[in-house]
Amino acid sequence: MRRIDVQLDERTYPIHIGAGCMSDEHLFKPHLTGNQVAVISNETVAPLYLDELLKALGGVSVDIFTLPDGEQHKTLDSYAAIMDFLLAKRHNRSTTLVALGGGVVGDIAGFVAATFQRGVGFIQVPTTLLAQVDSAVGGKTAVNHPAGKNMIGAFYQPRCVIADSSVFATLPEREYRAGFAEVLKYGVIADLEFFDWIEQAADRLLNKDPDALARVVGRSCEIKADVVASDEREVGLRAILNFGHTFGHAIETLTNYRTYLHGEAVAIGMVMAADLSVRMGFLALSAAQRIKTVLRSFGLPVCPPPELSDDAMHQAMGMDKKVVDGKLRLVLAEAIGRVIVSEEIDSSALRSTLNAADTLCDG
Amino acid sequence: MRRIDVQLDERTYPIHIGAGCMSDEHLFKPHLTGNQVAVISNETVAPLYLDELLKALGGVSVDIFTLPDGEQHKTLDSYAAIMDFLLAKRHNRSTTLVALGGGVVGDIAGFVAATFQRGVGFIQVPTTLLAQVDSAVGGKTAVNHPAGKNMIGAFYQPRCVIADSSVFATLPEREYRAGFAEVLKYGVIADLEFFDWIEQAADRLLNKDPDALARVVGRSCEIKADVVASDEREVGLRAILNFGHTFGHAIETLTNYRTYLHGEAVAIGMVMAADLSVRMGFLALSAAQRIKTVLRSFGLPVCPPPELSDDAMHQAMGMDKKVVDGKLRLVLAEAIGRVIVSEEIDSSALRSTLNAADTLCDG
Repeated sequence: MRRIDVQLDERTYPIHIGAGCMSDEHLFKPHLTGNQVAVISNETVAPLYLDELLKALGGVSVDIFTLPDGEQHKTLDSYAAIMDFLLAKRHNRSTTLVALGGGVVGDIAGFVAATFQRGVGFIQVPTTLLAQVDSAVGGKTAVNHPAGKNMIGAFYQPRCVIADSSVFATLPEREYRAGFAEVLKYGVIADLEFFDWIEQAADRLLNKDPDALARVVGRSCEIKADVVASDEREVGLRAILNFGHTFGHAIETLTNYRTYLHGEAVAIGMVMAADLSVRMGFLALSAAQRIKTVLRSFGLPVCPPPELSDDAMHQAMGMDKKVVDGKLRLVLAEAIGRVIVSEEIDSSALRSTLNAADTLCDG
Repeated sequence: MRRIDVQLDERTYPIHIGAGCMSDEHLFKPHLTGNQVAVISNETVAPLYLDELLKALGGVSVDIFTLPDGEQHKTLDSYAAIMDFLLAKRHNRSTTLVALGGGVVGDIAGFVAATFQRGVGFIQVPTTLLAQVDSAVGGKTAVNHPAGKNMIGAFYQPRCVIADSSVFATLPEREYRAGFAEVLKYGVIADLEFFDWIEQAADRLLNKDPDALARVVGRSCEIKADVVASDEREVGLRAILNFGHTFGHAIETLTNYRTYLHGEAVAIGMVMAADLSVRMGFLALSAAQRIKTVLRSFGLPVCPPPELSDDAMHQAMGMDKKVVDGKLRLVLAEAIGRVIVSEEIDSSALRSTLNAADTLCDG
């Protein structure tokens, strides 16, 4: 069992990483302030892990809300349905919400926790690789809007994150692989050595080697915790976590969150961000190729969907939260392990990237 | 012109109080970070003050969203409609929301500001007495739910509050008087001298004497700012601001927010809270009588609606946010100027208060 703290003064909280930690009542107990708990999960995850979690929650009164599975349910309607449920069950301000699921469940449940009676206790129990290394850590909560991803939400930190590595055994292969987009992102933005190691350990990781996985989750959480601790509300540095995401979000929005898993859209987005970095003269072509190759080795898509026009992509990117006063702000790579945030985006280079589906899909 | 600061470290913000300050562009300018502004107002207030406000906002691009008037529109549906509007108008993270209106407008607009793209700039321009002395100050934002008032919301501080005393000239008499419930509450919870003075100055205040009004708004904001600065998220002391509110909220919920203005429900609630304080042996009967008399002198209702059963009231109070782990927590007066927060509520005394409509309406 490993513990990493996200340092945020009086809101500092632990991430517990290890096989079976979801069943450890001692990890939950200090964070249950009242005598009510609501578990928010989805129809896929609940049958697999709910019993285990309930044992760890011990003697408190627990109500369970089950969402349908999928990013298309990360809406204000789902949010309102959970609010109705909590009020019908007479939950009060001392209740604790526990999110049991992937990023969608964690993001909605976190936004509910942030705003139910102006904020109640919240515990994340992420059950996908992507949620363990990214969405469950750092306090971003949100729902989507037809106009864009995560447009409605709040910064709200959990009281703790319980990242149980035994969940990977049941995680569908496609979702498991999708998590490696975010993992590789940490390498690109902050840690060449980590990137090198993932490249070499790809087979072990695809075979779910426990030691290799512990390193992946631990190091990813460390990098994210460091970035979040230095810039909780994304005034500056935190933006580097969005490498590939402005492209990825646009792809998700234009395909109505149905075609790609978030990690898959981010994989394509990272390839596009690397391509733009090359076109603007920041990044060596060989480094961009390497990023694409390793993403592919995890079975991730790297081609933008050819049916999305560059105009549609441009428009959708303009709706992304990273736009400030009409200026598109993108994260560009200077090398693997080093990125910059730039508002000086060469528009013809961007057009070329948006039109480069053919090239990006080759080689 | 007077300035009171709400001291909250890096989120410290000024309340500007004075006749005509809504037209002073220098008060707005430092708080407009981007080049977009959205004014949220309602159909009653907008025709009166929008032109004046727009002049003060100067050269930025302004979009205007107008709500219907009334507490029954303080819903998640209105909230969602404003989100749709902001996204349709392509507002981004650097936008500033300006609430021009009373408590309903301020509470909804504040909750939108707290959660649009995880938080954008927010300025309060309160146009009722109640909003100037209470709801615009302190960062509580929310919408109502059929199950209870302010059940969904966030703590989110504005960048500044512009309290223009010239608005009282057009404020309907009923709304003006309703504001004095909150003003008198400050006297009851924290300042006997202020209470004494209001009692004596009632006629001048009812005639909207500018100097008397300046004192009322200034002292109320000072008391609220002090309480909020010491306990922003209502972990302890801030609860005293809810004197009379648990009763009042139950009355508002049970009458579907249609029968009483918020201040009117609070006036009745204060009389009930004082009655309970007497029954539980904390408060002298003469002090409770005095509270009722001065509320009446401002034309405020002091009788609970006789058609509300004690069971319904009890149930609705149990849904209030001040309930922690099934325990009703109420603010009780020990004297005018001094209150305590108690979880040890004598249930038979509470029943008696809930059944005391006849007595309370007398004398």
